[in-house]
Amino acid sequence: MSGRRVALVGGGLSVFGVRAATWGELVQEAGRALFARLPELAGKDVDSLFVGAAQPERFAFQSHVAPLAAELLGLRPWKVVQRTELACASGQSAIRSAYAAIAAGLSDVAVAVGVEKMNLPSMAEANTSMADVLDRPWDGVQGATAPPFFAMCAQRHMKEFGTTPEQMARVSLKNHAFANSNPTAQFYEKRFTLEKLQKLPMVAPPLRLGDCSSMTDGAGAVLLVGEELARRYTDTPAWIAGTAQSTDFHNLANLPSLTEWGALRRAGQELYRTSGLGPGDIDFAELHDCFTISEIIEYEDLGFCPKGSGGRFIEEGESELGGRVPVNPRGGLLGCGHPLGATGIAQAVEVLDQFQSRVPPARRVAGAEVAMVHNLSGSANVHSLMLYRRGN
Amino acid sequence: MSGRRVALVGGGLSVFGVRAATWGELVQEAGRALFARLPELAGKDVDSLFVGAAQPERFAFQSHVAPLAAELLGLRPWKVVQRTELACASGQSAIRSAYAAIAAGLSDVAVAVGVEKMNLPSMAEANTSMADVLDRPWDGVQGATAPPFFAMCAQRHMKEFGTTPEQMARVSLKNHAFANSNPTAQFYEKRFTLEKLQKLPMVAPPLRLGDCSSMTDGAGAVLLVGEELARRYTDTPAWIAGTAQSTDFHNLANLPSLTEWGALRRAGQELYRTSGLGPGDIDFAELHDCFTISEIIEYEDLGFCPKGSGGRFIEEGESELGGRVPVNPRGGLLGCGHPLGATGIAQAVEVLDQFQSRVPPARRVAGAEVAMVHNLSGSANVHSLMLYRRGN
Repeated sequence: MSGRRVALVGGGLSVFGVRAATWGELVQEAGRALFARLPELAGKDVDSLFVGAAQPERFAFQSHVAPLAAELLGLRPWKVVQRTELACASGQSAIRSAYAAIAAGLSDVAVAVGVEKMNLPSMAEANTSMADVLDRPWDGVQGATAPPFFAMCAQRHMKEFGTTPEQMARVSLKNHAFANSNPTAQFYEKRFTLEKLQKLPMVAPPLRLGDCSSMTDGAGAVLLVGEELARRYTDTPAWIAGTAQSTDFHNLANLPSLTEWGALRRAGQELYRTSGLGPGDIDFAELHDCFTISEIIEYEDLGFCPKGSGGRFIEEGESELGGRVPVNPRGGLLGCGHPLGATGIAQAVEVLDQFQSRVPPARRVAGAEVAMVHNLSGSANVHSLMLYRRGN
Repeated sequence: MSGRRVALVGGGLSVFGVRAATWGELVQEAGRALFARLPELAGKDVDSLFVGAAQPERFAFQSHVAPLAAELLGLRPWKVVQRTELACASGQSAIRSAYAAIAAGLSDVAVAVGVEKMNLPSMAEANTSMADVLDRPWDGVQGATAPPFFAMCAQRHMKEFGTTPEQMARVSLKNHAFANSNPTAQFYEKRFTLEKLQKLPMVAPPLRLGDCSSMTDGAGAVLLVGEELARRYTDTPAWIAGTAQSTDFHNLANLPSLTEWGALRRAGQELYRTSGLGPGDIDFAELHDCFTISEIIEYEDLGFCPKGSGGRFIEEGESELGGRVPVNPRGGLLGCGHPLGATGIAQAVEVLDQFQSRVPPARRVAGAEVAMVHNLSGSANVHSLMLYRRGN
């Protein structure tokens, strides 16, 4: 990384769930939460807006969404306005774009908004939309959407490493328990037990309903600024200490492995190399638990534990508070829901909230100084990472 | 601008038109043209891919298109992979993103691809898609797509300044004539006269068919690199000498004026201020002539001529070769067609081709050293500018 340092200094979220709100109302709800937290910020100070949104064209029948979001937020960006799409990682892609623009001197004060309105009066359109995330003419038309793909990863992980459905259910149990302390989470009030999770309907064997993140409506917004402006907005910024991303081929037939995500390993190694930090320095991580098996594979490929031992890592409580690397204190995609474009933004808000001690004790990572955010997209072929360090 | 300098060092285009090719085949056709021009470039050297695409979800039933395009091009980007959407300016948005990433040190060697597949077996889906570029619940549902909106601009410009349909037709005549020397243009072989243009069917009064850019399939690809790498690929790079963008409100009812595009004026002033150059320094410009009236208003708001005299500017040949500022030697959106995501990329390719004297004499701007590229999007509420300088 070169260029100027960039700080995350504010964040706000809409409530996540099955919402009666429109796409635009979700954007405004997140914007209000952000602006309420930053009384020093005037709309005219925001020179750029980055919108992370996966499929507003299909979910909300709306394109050219970045300037529309600007209008809905009362902003008139005069430096950069742009929407980024990277399927389930669209939110983080917006943050990375804002980061690059600020580091390059193209922007000084940028809002990044992530949003998805996934629940529609008829879900036919929504379901069609989920089939075009993979390579549609080759994989989508075969019915390869996310649940069957990640089920294949889970089946293979069980066969190769002895991972069990109960270990996967434990990921869901942990993240839902964290979500019980997060009032913006889709499953805030929902209590689960290991037994209950293992009796939920099967979606794609071995993945049951509780192993899958949901179709969710939600939005989030963060403020990012150049280093010299950080202290204007907060005493405790979250500095962007690193970012990395790597890509494998898209077509399922071309993926080298279902259980070892090479792009994640490469992105992790690049992040550790460029930041000078290692897995042992991560105080907590927001990982992309679109499915329980995802979180287990991510423990491994990020080096939190050896390959194949992700199941034991959760079983032994290593990703709980007090464990080796607490994972998804926000509640994860499993507990909070997964409005595609909003997820990466909401994870960043959790990092700032943790650093600023704004979260309740039930999910607080005491003394956290370094946090990682991870998103995957597609057939787990693209992995995107951010590293944040608490500013003191 | 801060950060490291960035150079455009290669480009390639698919043929534009009503193509039997799929979305992916268009990407590959542009990629092949780029790679054929850069024998020194190995796929493994490309660390990042930026895809500009407006509506693949609706036009090509495909999302998560950036990693898909990477696969189709034989690339595995390990630094940034991202798709940007900014409606008709999506291609330039991809270039700006690549520029920011390279200037910030996030990338060294980036491909930016722009693509749109707009012609479908049934055009119902395509036409639906064009109604969601404006604010759909407020404007789109009233039938406000691009032609009626720009027709309103034209009507108002005629009333305020006496601009005539014949002056507008002259824009079309000029750009179609330039396109006759561009074999990738949709209307390469199509010859027009002023009389013929003024007898074409009316689309939205006063705009006739020849005043409107078309629904086009096409793709383009460029290579952008950090300054220290530029000479590896070419003796004559196009240096990015400036970029600016500005936004007005989105909803038609909120637009301050139909004939003076404030966001364009502000973006132009910012570009001139930051680059230290003025309208008199521009050797040629690639302007967003989605409609003939657009190019006329752009002459004015970019300061090529006083407000209201854009009609005379074309009439007096000031935007022809040898005029004050030759505009759209490539053939423009009118002559080349307007595959939304590809347009901004194709304009950049024209800049490089002009600087490298690769274009035929009929459209060559002799001795060009400085070139501007402009795109608008939506209800002309977002304006995006790039400034290139020939490297010697």
